[in-house]
Amino acid sequence: MSKTSDSQLMEKIVSLCKRRGFIFQSSEIYGGLNGAWDYGPLGVELKRNLKNYWWHVTVHERDDVVGMDGSILTHPAVLKASGHVEGFSDPMIDCRTCNAHLRTDQVVEKKGVKQCPNCGGKDLTAPRQFNLMFETHVGAAADETSIAYLRPETAQSIFVQFKNILEVSRKKLPFGIAQIGKAFRNEINPRNFTFRSREFEQMELEYFCRAEQGMELLEYWKEERLRFYENIGIPPSKLHVLTVPDEERAFYSKGTYDIEYDFPFGRQELEGVAYRTDYDLSQHQKASGKSLEYFDEETKQRFIPHVVEPSAGVDRAVLALICEAYTEDQAPDEKGKMETRMVLRFHPRIAPIKCGVFPLLKNNSQLVAKAKEIVSLLRPHMTVFYDESGAIGRRYRRQDEIGTPFGVTVDFETFGEKDAALRDTVTLRDRDSMKQERVAIQDLPGILRDRLA
Amino acid sequence: MSKTSDSQLMEKIVSLCKRRGFIFQSSEIYGGLNGAWDYGPLGVELKRNLKNYWWHVTVHERDDVVGMDGSILTHPAVLKASGHVEGFSDPMIDCRTCNAHLRTDQVVEKKGVKQCPNCGGKDLTAPRQFNLMFETHVGAAADETSIAYLRPETAQSIFVQFKNILEVSRKKLPFGIAQIGKAFRNEINPRNFTFRSREFEQMELEYFCRAEQGMELLEYWKEERLRFYENIGIPPSKLHVLTVPDEERAFYSKGTYDIEYDFPFGRQELEGVAYRTDYDLSQHQKASGKSLEYFDEETKQRFIPHVVEPSAGVDRAVLALICEAYTEDQAPDEKGKMETRMVLRFHPRIAPIKCGVFPLLKNNSQLVAKAKEIVSLLRPHMTVFYDESGAIGRRYRRQDEIGTPFGVTVDFETFGEKDAALRDTVTLRDRDSMKQERVAIQDLPGILRDRLA
Repeated sequence: MSKTSDSQLMEKIVSLCKRRGFIFQSSEIYGGLNGAWDYGPLGVELKRNLKNYWWHVTVHERDDVVGMDGSILTHPAVLKASGHVEGFSDPMIDCRTCNAHLRTDQVVEKKGVKQCPNCGGKDLTAPRQFNLMFETHVGAAADETSIAYLRPETAQSIFVQFKNILEVSRKKLPFGIAQIGKAFRNEINPRNFTFRSREFEQMELEYFCRAEQGMELLEYWKEERLRFYENIGIPPSKLHVLTVPDEERAFYSKGTYDIEYDFPFGRQELEGVAYRTDYDLSQHQKASGKSLEYFDEETKQRFIPHVVEPSAGVDRAVLALICEAYTEDQAPDEKGKMETRMVLRFHPRIAPIKCGVFPLLKNNSQLVAKAKEIVSLLRPHMTVFYDESGAIGRRYRRQDEIGTPFGVTVDFETFGEKDAALRDTVTLRDRDSMKQERVAIQDLPGILRDRLA
Repeated sequence: MSKTSDSQLMEKIVSLCKRRGFIFQSSEIYGGLNGAWDYGPLGVELKRNLKNYWWHVTVHERDDVVGMDGSILTHPAVLKASGHVEGFSDPMIDCRTCNAHLRTDQVVEKKGVKQCPNCGGKDLTAPRQFNLMFETHVGAAADETSIAYLRPETAQSIFVQFKNILEVSRKKLPFGIAQIGKAFRNEINPRNFTFRSREFEQMELEYFCRAEQGMELLEYWKEERLRFYENIGIPPSKLHVLTVPDEERAFYSKGTYDIEYDFPFGRQELEGVAYRTDYDLSQHQKASGKSLEYFDEETKQRFIPHVVEPSAGVDRAVLALICEAYTEDQAPDEKGKMETRMVLRFHPRIAPIKCGVFPLLKNNSQLVAKAKEIVSLLRPHMTVFYDESGAIGRRYRRQDEIGTPFGVTVDFETFGEKDAALRDTVTLRDRDSMKQERVAIQDLPGILRDRLA
């Protein structure tokens, strides 16, 4: 199962994402912009929850990490020093018949002859290096002097601000600088829905340390990051750690792990955890002429710190969350007949909507007023969706389909009509077990907050 | 005061922003990238608090608004239809002597002769239109067919996804779509610190309605937005509403307000609230050939909705918050001598760090352990800064300078050494009044949460 591709499942997921407002094609009404995606009302909430949780555990819960937010437009000197201007490229081949631009590994070989996968043409150019950075011009002159790049990773803005942040934060080694933000790569062949796109978001931590701590911290962060994915609902059985072999690692890295997930289209990288040594800071110190050294007050030594980098893709993690949550099961409909139920089993922590609130009937003002009171009661603590239209079973199904973990229904019992003991209680339904319990309205915020934590 | 510029104050603020880690120049170690800024550890927290509060009151607290997050890379057809490709430009003049590119209004006139403000040269070109959009190429071909733009505003991605979001959200008019994200404008002359920069972030709401509701909703949103700024600590006396006169409004707008703030460099726009009629959706319907109409189930009418747009600049609001918070007052030092105290009087809601926690002495393990316990107690609820180094008065000053509203000190009374009634209590200090009160440790999360709300 894990390594095979399930294209039917993937089609269902892409279709659900559009139908329920998780993800749309960018500029869709104009035919779309290849490799760029827009997050809809539910997608943006899911993404926010993921990013906020990462920020919480990576920055706010720790004494040894601070955050930053750097610009996307990047001075070319930064990316020259980092090696991106020279070497951040994929080999590309053009087809002279249909003018297609192909990544070298896309070219088809038949009977020893290379052919264009597009038109079958055999008149192909030799491979050439295609730089994946997006280039633009800053200022009024559109020439060599005005080039700036859209950053291909958030990491470099951390390295170039290392000294400033070291000074203001008064941190001692080991300590980290975290950043969430957009990055851009002009992929020759964007593919697998949002998995490989040209515009994407990263959550990166650069964790600086002494050389002798590097290998140990690489292990530490690999474990921390695995725990993170578990904590948002990705089971360990679907996560795999690939030790990147020596010959495939960047030359400056002393060790790299890829954390992979079993997507429906195959096992693919969610995050890289790399021990990058002192390569980046050394390069920037050399190129800028500014000292990026750390001064150890105890030993009176000055040196360039080493760094371990857990680098996660926001869009990949969102996609993994949706793939993982997607489930079909059997549940009874209004009349008790079994039917296929589509459920997104999001971990409550990252579910876009935490609680649905429903008056049993739409045309009963008492039920409606009480339900709206409950919305106001819950809203300071969580995202709430109020729905009064359609049979209650259908309303539950709609929330199941978008992964809302809890549903609260106001019915006539809420007014104690048959049983005074039930006054001011409501039905609380659990998405996964579909079990319903009776709880006091005043206890709802506390009960739900506990289950969401 | 309000309309004059205070350059000395502005210098102090810029210097504080760098010294304490709010804002750095982008790519600073390479000489900087003009018009781009990086937010440091405190700046990123301040910006997050601002954006999260906007999202909370604009999206989560309302039944009639949903969010989205669109791509920055934008299909050229979107910006042709919106009018940006044709008309989003500033008039520019070049100096043939020093090759400076000047905005027409920068050119100096002396004795009736136009001169370059840079070199005094008089050999100037005629004004020409300079488009402010950043252009790049998507895909492997770098020609006309592959142009994409960095969006100059987030609004257009809302308009082009209007139909998708209408369908998935099942909203009825009036309703809104909100977005926070980066936008880019190639300003000829970036200036006033982060106020006018080339890369910036917007918080935009497009609130769709029937034509007859437009003018009323324009008033409603102007008032809502003024209330927002008050709620984050900008006093009404520093906010001004400018009614944009007919001849300065975009031709399609039936009414526009600018909400302005008295910055040290003068009164400048924080936010525009514009009634844009049905212009944008009509343009996109025409250009894309896709219906962007709304179907009214009651009246059975189909029509293109009108829209009211409150459009706020994140960076401008952050800068206003810092300028507004900046205060110097007199406070006693360790020995009771009065000295000048620098305080950032941030509203607790948006302060980067909510609470400092201090053991009275660094070398007393009992004090240190208890202080760290309190850090763990508070951290699930708020950002906390632990500081054990230096005299307690100096630690208070450091937190005052970054705007931390509360400080908790663990001293010997905490262990009930002199007075058993004080066991398990700490000193809670208020930044603004500098008053100290004695509170039970277990009550701290509740007390602080109430004061932060």
